[in-house]
Amino acid sequence: MIGEIIAIGDELTSGRIANTTSGYAARHLFAAGHEIYAMQTIGDAPELIGEALKRAIRRVEFVVVTGGLGSTSDDMTNQAVAEALKRPTILYPDILERIRRHLGDEGTGGLEKMAWLPEGAEVLNPRERMAGYMLIHDGVPIFFLPGVPAQMRRLLVEEVLPRLASWKGGLVRSVRQRVYRTFGLPEIEINSLLQGMEGTDQVRIGYYPVECEVHVSLTVTGDNGRDEDPDHLFGRCDQRIRELLGEHLYGLDRQTLAGRVGELLGQRKCILAVAESCTGGMLGERITSVAGSSEWFAGGVVAYSNRLKEILLGIEPDLLRHYGAVSEQAARAMAARLAQRTGADTVLSVTGIAGPGGGSTEKPVGTVYIGLYHQGRVAARLHHFDGDRARIREWSVCTALDTVRRALLGSGA
Amino acid sequence: MIGEIIAIGDELTSGRIANTTSGYAARHLFAAGHEIYAMQTIGDAPELIGEALKRAIRRVEFVVVTGGLGSTSDDMTNQAVAEALKRPTILYPDILERIRRHLGDEGTGGLEKMAWLPEGAEVLNPRERMAGYMLIHDGVPIFFLPGVPAQMRRLLVEEVLPRLASWKGGLVRSVRQRVYRTFGLPEIEINSLLQGMEGTDQVRIGYYPVECEVHVSLTVTGDNGRDEDPDHLFGRCDQRIRELLGEHLYGLDRQTLAGRVGELLGQRKCILAVAESCTGGMLGERITSVAGSSEWFAGGVVAYSNRLKEILLGIEPDLLRHYGAVSEQAARAMAARLAQRTGADTVLSVTGIAGPGGGSTEKPVGTVYIGLYHQGRVAARLHHFDGDRARIREWSVCTALDTVRRALLGSGA
Repeated sequence: MIGEIIAIGDELTSGRIANTTSGYAARHLFAAGHEIYAMQTIGDAPELIGEALKRAIRRVEFVVVTGGLGSTSDDMTNQAVAEALKRPTILYPDILERIRRHLGDEGTGGLEKMAWLPEGAEVLNPRERMAGYMLIHDGVPIFFLPGVPAQMRRLLVEEVLPRLASWKGGLVRSVRQRVYRTFGLPEIEINSLLQGMEGTDQVRIGYYPVECEVHVSLTVTGDNGRDEDPDHLFGRCDQRIRELLGEHLYGLDRQTLAGRVGELLGQRKCILAVAESCTGGMLGERITSVAGSSEWFAGGVVAYSNRLKEILLGIEPDLLRHYGAVSEQAARAMAARLAQRTGADTVLSVTGIAGPGGGSTEKPVGTVYIGLYHQGRVAARLHHFDGDRARIREWSVCTALDTVRRALLGSGA
Repeated sequence: MIGEIIAIGDELTSGRIANTTSGYAARHLFAAGHEIYAMQTIGDAPELIGEALKRAIRRVEFVVVTGGLGSTSDDMTNQAVAEALKRPTILYPDILERIRRHLGDEGTGGLEKMAWLPEGAEVLNPRERMAGYMLIHDGVPIFFLPGVPAQMRRLLVEEVLPRLASWKGGLVRSVRQRVYRTFGLPEIEINSLLQGMEGTDQVRIGYYPVECEVHVSLTVTGDNGRDEDPDHLFGRCDQRIRELLGEHLYGLDRQTLAGRVGELLGQRKCILAVAESCTGGMLGERITSVAGSSEWFAGGVVAYSNRLKEILLGIEPDLLRHYGAVSEQAARAMAARLAQRTGADTVLSVTGIAGPGGGSTEKPVGTVYIGLYHQGRVAARLHHFDGDRARIREWSVCTALDTVRRALLGSGA
């Protein structure tokens, strides 16, 4: 289906907040086989919102609107819909009841506004405290989603995509899709590895660089009975892509690098600990973002200052003086000492210069050593990462995770 | 002046590439006193581009168009302009000459296309190999910039902003803006605190919940000589907002909570360390995301397992057995012990249940204790946070930062 995305909010048109929701929606709608005709970003002005909505309804088959559903006076979406589509807002007692239940006797304050929706609105997720509804106008489904990224993402994936997939208006096509997540090769090399996969117009391959990773999407479509069997074709493409990506492929669909590392640690009954300097806790944060990580992660030390490298890890001051805190020797010592102290069988260490200050000709900003203690052996490797502080830290964390992933793969099941 | 931004490219409407240029342009145009009426993103389709352009010219005072100026067949902007505005493309011999000089005898290949521009186009930067031109249509200046972010940014700052500043066509309006960042009150309460501030149409107040924080923007506009002096009005509003927000206001414009904490630690010559359990390193990560944080941050311990709480922090097994790792006693001990071990004068500790597992009736998911050791005294407070694992961890980190911020404010300069 052909759709349009409208993002609402003065914070977006002033550039104060980057609009990440429209790109997210476009990516997922595209991956599900839809086409985005246009994306608009407009301020909190009812006439503008109404005008954009009316134009979209005339020219596309579905519309996604994000933002402006909140309780404060600058949230104008419902009012704009009411005026533009001539659908007065009416009170949804269930929503009011939910708000009241949540707030108890404190009264609803301005939140009551959120219980007044345009006539005909179907609440997308009636179980939870989350704004968001669908309206069908002139046969066109319009999805109104909150601007809060986490809520918008969840409603898009859990409510909007399934409704569009079963929508009777459009042509019923069978779509199969999978995302292959890779780390270790730049997009251009992944691209040339998979060249020639897109033989027919039933197969579509997309490349998405996401932070330090490259994600590849395979979409196979087919009208049942008219094209090659989509399931069969999908199986063939899937197998070929896995072969071509090899060890660079770390996971499928929503699996994260940290999630994959946790899975491997669990399978091999290993316990990981981390000794971090320039990443300041970011590696631990990423590992523990996975639910259940206490099964395979013990913790570690953020040895940001040299003093804490000495006190908490027992690194000799002489070693730091002689080789420097950013050195192969320091990275090896950090990993080995933490293994000794904690009894963890697998330890990652990171020490480097994230910038913007602290660089030298010999060790410029972006110089990072990643150490690994595993199965009684310790090694460290030098990396050079480009970019600003945030990017260097992000690359350090991903590379550390990938280092232990490949080591665990190598050490067998 | 009031403007509109149009970004062109199939890579944007498919979500394959995040559109960062429009937000960048909006931010800088806004900062220079302009207002963005709407932002659009459309695919490489000449009719759509033409339609968007014509509509923009009717409703705003200037237009910025990015993308579609390259040499490949999907670059359609010039063709779209020629058709929509009835301005045939003509050959610019200087540009062709520059392309030829650059390529030598290899011929110009498809690049010759880039020397054909709509009649009336003024090249923005004639010295370098960079696409980008201005066209004045019906009195409205339209800036066509390349989609390559680095080039677009440079042309916007060096060529577009100066031309707009000296533009004689539009009404000269003065705009002043400031963002107030708060932590500690929900949006609805901030909203009612500031109610009544928007007395005239010269003053606009926006409310933006961003993760755990609420940002408030104040925008004051005025036509010189016609309205109340905008600078004076701005000063009055600014002072009133600061009074009303009080201690909940932690910073202005782009300052972060971690940045503000670092500033206060630096002013008071304090050294911070952290003992983290459920946040797994996230608090350290946030603190060290600020450049120069080694001035006020020593590091700490990620004591994720009970064993590491004992080994690395020296917490007595009895304490953990008796009160549990998620308890006021554990939070206090974590902070106090790390202060002892490291000599840091200020220590934050976090221990809680981030979920989804691990909760009980007595201590449900979202139960988090935050401890603080400061000036020889240690205290811990119980919090209950809502939401999923990521949200509970985010709230834990922000609340910990805000805890030390308020303590530092209280302990005086």
